[in-house]
Amino acid sequence: MKISSAESINAVIIGASGYAGSELTRLVAAHPALALAGIYVSESSNDAGKPLAQLYPRLRDVVNQPLQPLGEQQLAHIKQTAQVVFIATEHDVAAQLVSALHDGNKLIVDLSGAHRLAAASDYERYYGFEHPFEAALNQAVYGLAEWYTDELTQAQLIAVPGCYPTASLLALKPLVSLLANQPVIINAVSGVTGAGRKPKQNTLGAELSLQAYGVFSHRHQPEIERYSAMPVVFTPHLGNFKRGILASIYATVADDVSHQDVEQAFSVYQKQPCVRVGHQHTPAIQDVEHTGYCDIGWHLNGCQLIVFAAIDNLLKGAASQAVQCVNLRLGLPQTVGLPL
Amino acid sequence: MKISSAESINAVIIGASGYAGSELTRLVAAHPALALAGIYVSESSNDAGKPLAQLYPRLRDVVNQPLQPLGEQQLAHIKQTAQVVFIATEHDVAAQLVSALHDGNKLIVDLSGAHRLAAASDYERYYGFEHPFEAALNQAVYGLAEWYTDELTQAQLIAVPGCYPTASLLALKPLVSLLANQPVIINAVSGVTGAGRKPKQNTLGAELSLQAYGVFSHRHQPEIERYSAMPVVFTPHLGNFKRGILASIYATVADDVSHQDVEQAFSVYQKQPCVRVGHQHTPAIQDVEHTGYCDIGWHLNGCQLIVFAAIDNLLKGAASQAVQCVNLRLGLPQTVGLPL
Amino acid sequence: MKISSAESINAVIIGASGYAGSELTRLVAAHPALALAGIYVSESSNDAGKPLAQLYPRLRDVVNQPLQPLGEQQLAHIKQTAQVVFIATEHDVAAQLVSALHDGNKLIVDLSGAHRLAAASDYERYYGFEHPFEAALNQAVYGLAEWYTDELTQAQLIAVPGCYPTASLLALKPLVSLLANQPVIINAVSGVTGAGRKPKQNTLGAELSLQAYGVFSHRHQPEIERYSAMPVVFTPHLGNFKRGILASIYATVADDVSHQDVEQAFSVYQKQPCVRVGHQHTPAIQDVEHTGYCDIGWHLNGCQLIVFAAIDNLLKGAASQAVQCVNLRLGLPQTVGLPL
Amino acid sequence: MKISSAESINAVIIGASGYAGSELTRLVAAHPALALAGIYVSESSNDAGKPLAQLYPRLRDVVNQPLQPLGEQQLAHIKQTAQVVFIATEHDVAAQLVSALHDGNKLIVDLSGAHRLAAASDYERYYGFEHPFEAALNQAVYGLAEWYTDELTQAQLIAVPGCYPTASLLALKPLVSLLANQPVIINAVSGVTGAGRKPKQNTLGAELSLQAYGVFSHRHQPEIERYSAMPVVFTPHLGNFKRGILASIYATVADDVSHQDVEQAFSVYQKQPCVRVGHQHTPAIQDVEHTGYCDIGWHLNGCQLIVFAAIDNLLKGAASQAVQCVNLRLGLPQTVGLPL
Repeated sequence: MKISSAESINAVIIGASGYAGSELTRLVAAHPALALAGIYVSESSNDAGKPLAQLYPRLRDVVNQPLQPLGEQQLAHIKQTAQVVFIATEHDVAAQLVSALHDGNKLIVDLSGAHRLAAASDYERYYGFEHPFEAALNQAVYGLAEWYTDELTQAQLIAVPGCYPTASLLALKPLVSLLANQPVIINAVSGVTGAGRKPKQNTLGAELSLQAYGVFSHRHQPEIERYSAMPVVFTPHLGNFKRGILASIYATVADDVSHQDVEQAFSVYQKQPCVRVGHQHTPAIQDVEHTGYCDIGWHLNGCQLIVFAAIDNLLKGAASQAVQCVNLRLGLPQTVGLPL
Repeated sequence: MKISSAESINAVIIGASGYAGSELTRLVAAHPALALAGIYVSESSNDAGKPLAQLYPRLRDVVNQPLQPLGEQQLAHIKQTAQVVFIATEHDVAAQLVSALHDGNKLIVDLSGAHRLAAASDYERYYGFEHPFEAALNQAVYGLAEWYTDELTQAQLIAVPGCYPTASLLALKPLVSLLANQPVIINAVSGVTGAGRKPKQNTLGAELSLQAYGVFSHRHQPEIERYSAMPVVFTPHLGNFKRGILASIYATVADDVSHQDVEQAFSVYQKQPCVRVGHQHTPAIQDVEHTGYCDIGWHLNGCQLIVFAAIDNLLKGAASQAVQCVNLRLGLPQTVGLPL
Repeated sequence: MKISSAESINAVIIGASGYAGSELTRLVAAHPALALAGIYVSESSNDAGKPLAQLYPRLRDVVNQPLQPLGEQQLAHIKQTAQVVFIATEHDVAAQLVSALHDGNKLIVDLSGAHRLAAASDYERYYGFEHPFEAALNQAVYGLAEWYTDELTQAQLIAVPGCYPTASLLALKPLVSLLANQPVIINAVSGVTGAGRKPKQNTLGAELSLQAYGVFSHRHQPEIERYSAMPVVFTPHLGNFKRGILASIYATVADDVSHQDVEQAFSVYQKQPCVRVGHQHTPAIQDVEHTGYCDIGWHLNGCQLIVFAAIDNLLKGAASQAVQCVNLRLGLPQTVGLPL
Repeated sequence: MKISSAESINAVIIGASGYAGSELTRLVAAHPALALAGIYVSESSNDAGKPLAQLYPRLRDVVNQPLQPLGEQQLAHIKQTAQVVFIATEHDVAAQLVSALHDGNKLIVDLSGAHRLAAASDYERYYGFEHPFEAALNQAVYGLAEWYTDELTQAQLIAVPGCYPTASLLALKPLVSLLANQPVIINAVSGVTGAGRKPKQNTLGAELSLQAYGVFSHRHQPEIERYSAMPVVFTPHLGNFKRGILASIYATVADDVSHQDVEQAFSVYQKQPCVRVGHQHTPAIQDVEHTGYCDIGWHLNGCQLIVFAAIDNLLKGAASQAVQCVNLRLGLPQTVGLPL
């Protein structure tokens, strides 16, 4: 697969009508090297044929394309013409699409969870569907941009991390050699956009509050454990706000670990434009809302280490991280800045 | 129909699973003179058979009854045994239920809009269904407790006002003889519980904002005009909060109307326990949230009169007003207080 | 000290203008056995002389008393006439007031932190003032109503627990014999009323977000450790909502502890009207907002135990718990219900 | 005064620590033709010397300059070196600064209200201070970018409109020849950032609700009337959200005005990149939050015209409009886009 950035690169987005998909569409439309060649929804979607800006009046004059229904013909067209395919659909649909589109001639960037876990059996257990294309699980490169940089420059299939794993892993991966052999506690709170755009009882405005869910059973737990190589107790909560995640992480360091050691460990991010670290810092969700940053603050007291990580779940936790991955793959500069 | 308050009175609630229905259930369960004899939902509802506290964990140990499916048998039972029937269902269902239950031996309190307008034709136009029982429209007493007190003491069928009309009419009705012959502007903002418990795209937490809807076409417009006898331009807005309504009302008084005249007009509420009026006052929604109060503030500058009215849409705008009406009908004291 | 409930008991509230103080005032005004004999603020307060309802328009027609300045004369009057004195002031002021009022003839209920810790030296360390009356620390009974019931029936000075400790201790105290010897992690999120009514930069509406604070240094940590007899890592967060606390608590049970053991441990609350426990339950803040309940949910997976506890910080975390304590002291029934 | 855009232009910001000032700082720092030469606060400010990113952690790595105290020396330096001076201070301070800095050799852009009204006497009446430099009132060009375009290209002193006037005037100015001779009602709701960053009782997170203020007396009323040449009844409300304004505007058109007439009137914005108009549209605040857009929707029913206008109060209502004005003055393209 050769993708040259000499001229603009054809990119399509499948699943553009969702919250992450629409943010991604906005970013691709403004991208200096990508040409937004088409945005798609399921053939049976009520939104097929509508301009994206009808669903998101915010995007009027920003994205003027209609959501095309993804039928056989459109799929064939994408197969022939697209150089980058972003997939932001349901997990099982994404697995099918990768199976259909994967041909070595295009970069596929999957924002769903369909290519993040190691084995097909994980998909039956955690996602409730039979994975149609296990071979892809091996080929997929995990799109945690700050950590799989080299692999991403060669990737044909990128599995963009989940929102909770992005915050958790950016906080934990620098610490892997410092921690004692005890489970890490991750207490995370997400805004309601993380639950998607499909109307559900518990994501109604009248129901928003602060409440845990998926205790001991959330599918992001195996994803975090796979890429951190640590046992974690991950407990997500739904907050009463729209966007953002704050992960409050409790770990125990080995006996002889000092402040300098932790400082040194986090210095891995010194030249990373999208991660900002501070000792004694307590990042707030409003510091990263509508940005591509992950803000990290750490606190050490004896062997007890507390790390906070805040991201915008739709950007660093989905759309902007997908663009970071594509930039790495294409050798483009990492654009950051605020807001995104 | 004779309902004596000497012993506790059997009351049932149909449509107890909604936001207003559940608040009403809580109030009836705590009512000193009413016995909560049954709570019902549609026979086909997914909630049938569930304890109400499963839908509203807030009500655990407060209301321990299950939501019964309303089949033929249950309807017959209600017909035979209930002395007060509260209906908090969809409008067309309410019209059918009144038709089925109306027998002169019970008090029916309809919280839907099915008996607020004057003619069957209004229902085709504003509510989109054919009214099955036009005769009931004449019999129904409008349950604006502070204004139809005498009629309510005799009522067999009470049409509890809508939430927007309650706030608007309590502000406007005292002024009827003072206003110039010009349309009154009512700019109202409601919390999202007013849109009901059924999942919809625009009431998702991720969509909440501040936005008008139903411009020139909301069904509460004819209701407000009917009971105020004034032409009004009524514009509802959906706010980003859960409960409460603030109506900001702009009217023109006749040339010779003074501050004293307005003061005098609002003194009609002096002995009303649920209405609090203040000159130069700007009521906030948080002043009335979770209460049965309507707070009114008025401001006069030349001929320009501005009146603000704030209520809790689920209480004074629905459930607590329904209980006020029943108290009037039964000759019981008006219980108020805060919170309700 | 003899306080008989045969007739109504004179109660005064010092510090009635704050968020907890105003809620307490409302509860005392509605209490069947207490007579609200006076509400006070500091002599130098701008609010002195104002009706409480001017600060809280919500309380108009509910509490009609003015906030009296607490000068020497007023203090002497309280000393002579009050049977119950509630103190809801700053911590150091509360310590002085107890010192001045403590005479064995009245019940003093301190909602501040001034009598919760064991030693005067704790106050220098955690509260930054020199405690004027160390003897009171021994006499004070900790007002965690469900756990110090017997002591409360005899108390002359009650130290009402802090909001975070209330949620944390109600979750942890039943488990004391089941836990392994490891620190308990308490991740708690509070509404902004917990930060008080005095204007501060970080509690402005424009700043609200979700953010930790007081990491490793919050004064509620020693309070929780004192009354749980467990080492805890307590991390408070400020949320973007007004009221309520959710504590998410992570503990390790000893190897042989079963679901039945935990069930059994929490059965201690079976007859407690203000605590509702559920296995596999995830309490939401909206379930307890404006109520006196503490809702607890617990989840066990191997040795990992997660317990969630939700309260209204101003009620069960302050005002309603204070009233619970007084009810216990006076032999009155525990009134609960929803809303409070 | 000659300002060439051939090379980057020295710009300073006085009052950079406020909500609008910090947004402006971010925009100027990212501006392709402006060089951020200094950011200043009052000499006595607690924030003097701090990096702006300490106040706004969101801006870390985005703006790395410290807030300099504005003493005599700094003022002299600005006078000598700055080509563009943005002022985002209190109104009276801004008036003094313009008086001190105005020398015909630099562009002064005042975001305060100090140069929006016609006469010095207006400042005594509406702003409560004696205006020190009445001559400036005549020279100032009103920075409503879409309407004073020609004047702005020549301006030496720009008075950037207030947030409420921006929304109101963009909605009203196209209609001036269509309206009947009756007062226009403007019901507007603003987010709490509009009230500034200084801690106040009523802007605490615990107090946010929905409530009118400044009834018949807000200083934006004369500003709107001056630039619309219409009598208006302007009623601002404080909402429970951070950013954005929605103005709901009620006007009466002359008898023979048709839909086509209104459509035609609003076509004035057809080529304006920052104004988006839709017939039957109901703009939401979330459509414009964090953008430089003004979204307008209009509805005509007989002679009753309702126009909604939504903006981000800190951007189109302050900072981005200031940059629009500078771009016009310098002959640069109007950069828009989303988010800003």
